[in-house]
Amino acid sequence: MQQRQGELKGLVNAILDSYEKYPVIRNIDCGNRINSDTVTEILEMIRRIVFPGYFEMKNLRKDSIEYHVGELLENIEYHLTKQVMMALPHSEKYQHMGHHELAEKALTITHTFLGRIPALRDILATDVQAGYEGDPAAFNTDEVIFSYPGMYAITVNRIAHELYLLGVPLIPRMMTEHAHSQTGIDIHPGASIGEYFFIDHGTGVVIGETTVIGKYVKIYQGVTLGGLSTRGGQMLRGVKRHPTLEDNVTVYSGASILGGETVIGTGAVIGGNAFVTSSVPPHTRVSIKNPELQFKDRSKKAGELGQEGFFNRKEQD
Amino acid sequence: MQQRQGELKGLVNAILDSYEKYPVIRNIDCGNRINSDTVTEILEMIRRIVFPGYFEMKNLRKDSIEYHVGELLENIEYHLTKQVMMALPHSEKYQHMGHHELAEKALTITHTFLGRIPALRDILATDVQAGYEGDPAAFNTDEVIFSYPGMYAITVNRIAHELYLLGVPLIPRMMTEHAHSQTGIDIHPGASIGEYFFIDHGTGVVIGETTVIGKYVKIYQGVTLGGLSTRGGQMLRGVKRHPTLEDNVTVYSGASILGGETVIGTGAVIGGNAFVTSSVPPHTRVSIKNPELQFKDRSKKAGELGQEGFFNRKEQD
Amino acid sequence: MQQRQGELKGLVNAILDSYEKYPVIRNIDCGNRINSDTVTEILEMIRRIVFPGYFEMKNLRKDSIEYHVGELLENIEYHLTKQVMMALPHSEKYQHMGHHELAEKALTITHTFLGRIPALRDILATDVQAGYEGDPAAFNTDEVIFSYPGMYAITVNRIAHELYLLGVPLIPRMMTEHAHSQTGIDIHPGASIGEYFFIDHGTGVVIGETTVIGKYVKIYQGVTLGGLSTRGGQMLRGVKRHPTLEDNVTVYSGASILGGETVIGTGAVIGGNAFVTSSVPPHTRVSIKNPELQFKDRSKKAGELGQEGFFNRKEQD
Repeated sequence: MQQRQGELKGLVNAILDSYEKYPVIRNIDCGNRINSDTVTEILEMIRRIVFPGYFEMKNLRKDSIEYHVGELLENIEYHLTKQVMMALPHSEKYQHMGHHELAEKALTITHTFLGRIPALRDILATDVQAGYEGDPAAFNTDEVIFSYPGMYAITVNRIAHELYLLGVPLIPRMMTEHAHSQTGIDIHPGASIGEYFFIDHGTGVVIGETTVIGKYVKIYQGVTLGGLSTRGGQMLRGVKRHPTLEDNVTVYSGASILGGETVIGTGAVIGGNAFVTSSVPPHTRVSIKNPELQFKDRSKKAGELGQEGFFNRKEQD
Repeated sequence: MQQRQGELKGLVNAILDSYEKYPVIRNIDCGNRINSDTVTEILEMIRRIVFPGYFEMKNLRKDSIEYHVGELLENIEYHLTKQVMMALPHSEKYQHMGHHELAEKALTITHTFLGRIPALRDILATDVQAGYEGDPAAFNTDEVIFSYPGMYAITVNRIAHELYLLGVPLIPRMMTEHAHSQTGIDIHPGASIGEYFFIDHGTGVVIGETTVIGKYVKIYQGVTLGGLSTRGGQMLRGVKRHPTLEDNVTVYSGASILGGETVIGTGAVIGGNAFVTSSVPPHTRVSIKNPELQFKDRSKKAGELGQEGFFNRKEQD
Repeated sequence: MQQRQGELKGLVNAILDSYEKYPVIRNIDCGNRINSDTVTEILEMIRRIVFPGYFEMKNLRKDSIEYHVGELLENIEYHLTKQVMMALPHSEKYQHMGHHELAEKALTITHTFLGRIPALRDILATDVQAGYEGDPAAFNTDEVIFSYPGMYAITVNRIAHELYLLGVPLIPRMMTEHAHSQTGIDIHPGASIGEYFFIDHGTGVVIGETTVIGKYVKIYQGVTLGGLSTRGGQMLRGVKRHPTLEDNVTVYSGASILGGETVIGTGAVIGGNAFVTSSVPPHTRVSIKNPELQFKDRSKKAGELGQEGFFNRKEQD
């Protein structure tokens, strides 16, 4: 028993030594820290304000809705202000602000954000409509709100994008990465997206930080709206690296559209698996000739095992 | 302080006004609402019935198993009946039923569903076997049940499919979208899938609503069994839009098989990244000639930077 | 009421009969079972030790950090030992060990693992650096730790890999499949990965059991480091089936590198969507000629509806 205690003590000391060694990946004596669980809870509370009655345990009644919204909003105000206050010093701009000034700034940002919720609802109502109309498998608009991953991802993006525009560090990305983890859809909070946006299925979608998307745009699973080479790394920060999609563009599954100067014109359709690195004129349909299929009869006997072996080399587990 | 109270009051009022404006995306005064957390809990309880002892905190003992199953089943019966009762009015068929009639109907559906659990176990036992035999990295069948995402996705699909066949709105899709969020595998509850089904890795798999899959079928990550154009949107509801895969078909990663009239015959093998939009005869191996690789020596000096620049244009972040 | 009771009783009995029928997929009277929720909690506790202060609800202070680490470590020691003890008998090697001997072995494994945490921190510090330097969208190193899915996946892989090397069955895979579910990144715990590793975006990445990766390697979403045919199934267990990537290799999105004898040499760059099944010399850039794009004007009138129809056949929902 005593020996075990000794071993544990040794392990603790080795870990404490390691904390001294790598200050970059420890957060000790740094004052309050952002908490990712709290950020996720704030996000879910905002979603409950935005879509009232969908994600509550209780029924909402019109004659008491004011108290419900008031309580929820006060809760969001308290927690969001606190997290924003802890996030701000991560930005150079706020690094040397005192406690009181930070608190004021955080409260102002939170109130500005909360004031934009009605406008958020205006645009999210168009996304719900786009999801229902665009998918023959959609049962009704409630199903879109309840279960469509694309709807969840765009909801979180629109919330996070407002905080991003208000200059809040870290928190917007924590929100969109939470959505990424829930949906497989990776939209950077910096991306700017017009109304009536619909992502179907969505797994594998990547939409980069400086992407600009117009109205009535529809994209499918596995689509990348990305940058070209990032060999420049941090030297490329702030540069427009991702494409622009104008209104009424459709992008089918697996397509990649890359580069900050690439503009996909109004009404263009980008076919599945296309790889696009330069601009496309309006009302153009871009497609690839899919690789030709080769057919082989498998019902042959042992003699052809060599070919069998060759084929095997081209399949993966 | 008083000013802050006033601001909050103003924000609450703006949000309440917005609720008036968009009735489609609010659920106030609508009676009881389906709750997605409850649906997820029901799903997990059903999974604990189906695979007893794997997902419990306690050990199950043979001499008390009856009480354990009885308690769990009563719990499922209560909550599932309640959620089904709230889901039914979403379907036109049940829209004008009274409270009592809805309750009766919901209980009947729940009992019919629960009666199918032994048959569900029969078929899921074949899926566990297929997962173990099909993957050299599988340690044993317990590992397949504990941790394989494809096993989780097919378990949820088979549960949700039964509820879908019983005509329950919304709930089946909420279940499969929960599985989608956990696994990156998007199987619509309408899809009909034969025994010994195995999905390896799975991220990015999409299986559409009207897909029909035979026995001993194996598919890999990134495979789409999808529809052709959905420009018809809601006008296409109910039409068979997704393919049929007969027995013993294998589909390698990244392949797309599209269209309601596309039939992949018994024993066919579809190679990685193939794009198939018409039927394939039985026992046929379909593959693509993979795009030819171009090799370039990178160990050259500054003079070739132009080429370097060109290449960069084709890569993405 | 009595009728309902009777129905429920009948359902319970049918399920109990089914438990008799398929012993492979039940775990009754098997002694203590591994619990996947507990395994996930252990994983999160280890992550809090590795990155102190990032994922805590409270602030960590230097003058009390020793107690904090001590308490956490004691907790991990207790639960990990218990789970390892239940996992060991899944391996043939430990199948016939008695209770006491298993307990001893489990404690030794746990202590050995805990002793490796400082070394884990050394290498994870390099991964954080690689994530920050490699991505122009990264705000600072804290953002990488807080929200990058690739960072989460490699953290879990490095933890699970240590347990894998110590011969613990089931638990390492449960950990990496938890990470897979959170990130869409599927890294088998057997994969061996060098320092300064960075996965950007990550959804759809698959890294197989026998993969070996050098230092300063960077890979993007949708990359597969996989095996060739697995038609051998369980007969292939233990064989090196997945590729080797030497130092400074970059693999762009959607590329597949397959086969146990495939070696990608130092400094090589594999372009997006490339399909590589044989070795690549050092400092080589491998790319594919992307399928040629076909452009069609969509602003024509009704007469061309035939073409329109044809095109539709090639798109998917």
